[in-house]
Amino acid sequence: MRAGVFDSGAGGLTVVKSLLAHRFFDEIIYFGDTARVPYGPKDPATITRYALEALEFFKNFEIDLLITACNSVSAHALPELRANAPFPVYGVIEPGIQALQNRSLSPEARILVLGTKATIQSGRYQKGIEALGFTQIEALAPSLLVPLVEEGIYDGPVMQSVLHHYFGDLQSPDAVILGCTHFPLIADAIGGYFSPRPLLIHSGEAVAEYLQNEGYRPRRCETTVLKIFASENPDALKATAKHWLNR
Amino acid sequence: MRAGVFDSGAGGLTVVKSLLAHRFFDEIIYFGDTARVPYGPKDPATITRYALEALEFFKNFEIDLLITACNSVSAHALPELRANAPFPVYGVIEPGIQALQNRSLSPEARILVLGTKATIQSGRYQKGIEALGFTQIEALAPSLLVPLVEEGIYDGPVMQSVLHHYFGDLQSPDAVILGCTHFPLIADAIGGYFSPRPLLIHSGEAVAEYLQNEGYRPRRCETTVLKIFASENPDALKATAKHWLNR
Repeated sequence: MRAGVFDSGAGGLTVVKSLLAHRFFDEIIYFGDTARVPYGPKDPATITRYALEALEFFKNFEIDLLITACNSVSAHALPELRANAPFPVYGVIEPGIQALQNRSLSPEARILVLGTKATIQSGRYQKGIEALGFTQIEALAPSLLVPLVEEGIYDGPVMQSVLHHYFGDLQSPDAVILGCTHFPLIADAIGGYFSPRPLLIHSGEAVAEYLQNEGYRPRRCETTVLKIFASENPDALKATAKHWLNR
Repeated sequence: MRAGVFDSGAGGLTVVKSLLAHRFFDEIIYFGDTARVPYGPKDPATITRYALEALEFFKNFEIDLLITACNSVSAHALPELRANAPFPVYGVIEPGIQALQNRSLSPEARILVLGTKATIQSGRYQKGIEALGFTQIEALAPSLLVPLVEEGIYDGPVMQSVLHHYFGDLQSPDAVILGCTHFPLIADAIGGYFSPRPLLIHSGEAVAEYLQNEGYRPRRCETTVLKIFASENPDALKATAKHWLNR
């Protein structure tokens, strides 16, 4: 079984990490659109156009399914992708909402959704979480966290001042949706900012859970071949993959 | 006289601001490649490809000259642009170096060059400044300053912690080259971080000086028509222009 994983850049490797841990696939074809990263601050129409171009790339491989690890793409381009793909296409937002549902929180729980501007403005997480019966939902686009991760800053005074900038006025949430593929890399800093530490929902683990519900079965005894492509500088992306995935 | 001004996004409007103040041109055609911003972290080959595509756009207008306000483009794509353009093409790096020369600093002066990764890695500022006889040159890519400006953070605790992250270990410089079009917007924060306050070299003013040396003459009694184009969301760019340029 061969899966395609698409992201605007390196962030989607956090989803690949979960897929590798669960060993669903014999092969993963990863494509990062590094020449046009980031997608998060861009227009829905631009994001959809870029996603459809990436789809053409994936049609060159005999993949069984495509996972758009990018939340911004999942928020805006899924209908267009599904209408044009000869294979199933999964996003990360529906899995994230389902993962929250599976955590049996009280309906009074305070849910904090974090994502890019494109993701938050789509309102897709908010609507899905509201439909689960939650009433205290806060949604934020802490845009600086993405370049912080890209600068290799995972904690320390700069991270703390940025977290305080965005979260300083918030009541501590009970659960946080890490609705951008960069955020799992700073899960400790985000979770540790609040007291008590909230439950964190990570797209990678959410997708793994979701795929199991969809009937995909882990094959624990095999290894997964990972092939990495990028629209510029694939070597830099491969180096990041080595670092993040320890392989 | 009609000028084209090209930038990866909104930052080049800081150069437009200087051009408007000097009233060199009857009309300025501004193009921001907002669908693919930022250029600064990207590869030289990608930056050059994007710049050549922008050149094709400018060929639709009868412009007399093209100014690439973007330092990353100026660092990597000028030869290719000049080889393919039917009009003169000016960058911002040569003007910045010339502006430094005109400030009659001592050769022992400490010069700090700030720019994007692409600009700093090209070494173009450093080589040009070395050729002027300066021996104490430090070059840095404080990448987080660009998204900070885009988040509308010009000062305050986050800005201070980011400045400290990059500049905390530096000796106070005598002059700072603001080698990215975003940096003039935070000139106060950058200048104020050091004590005594260093001389700041701003691409916009440097280009205005340079154009005068090249024989372009200010026409102080006329107004300049400014036309703004973008590869996505021109309305957002126009709103930024209204805000930054007060018009």
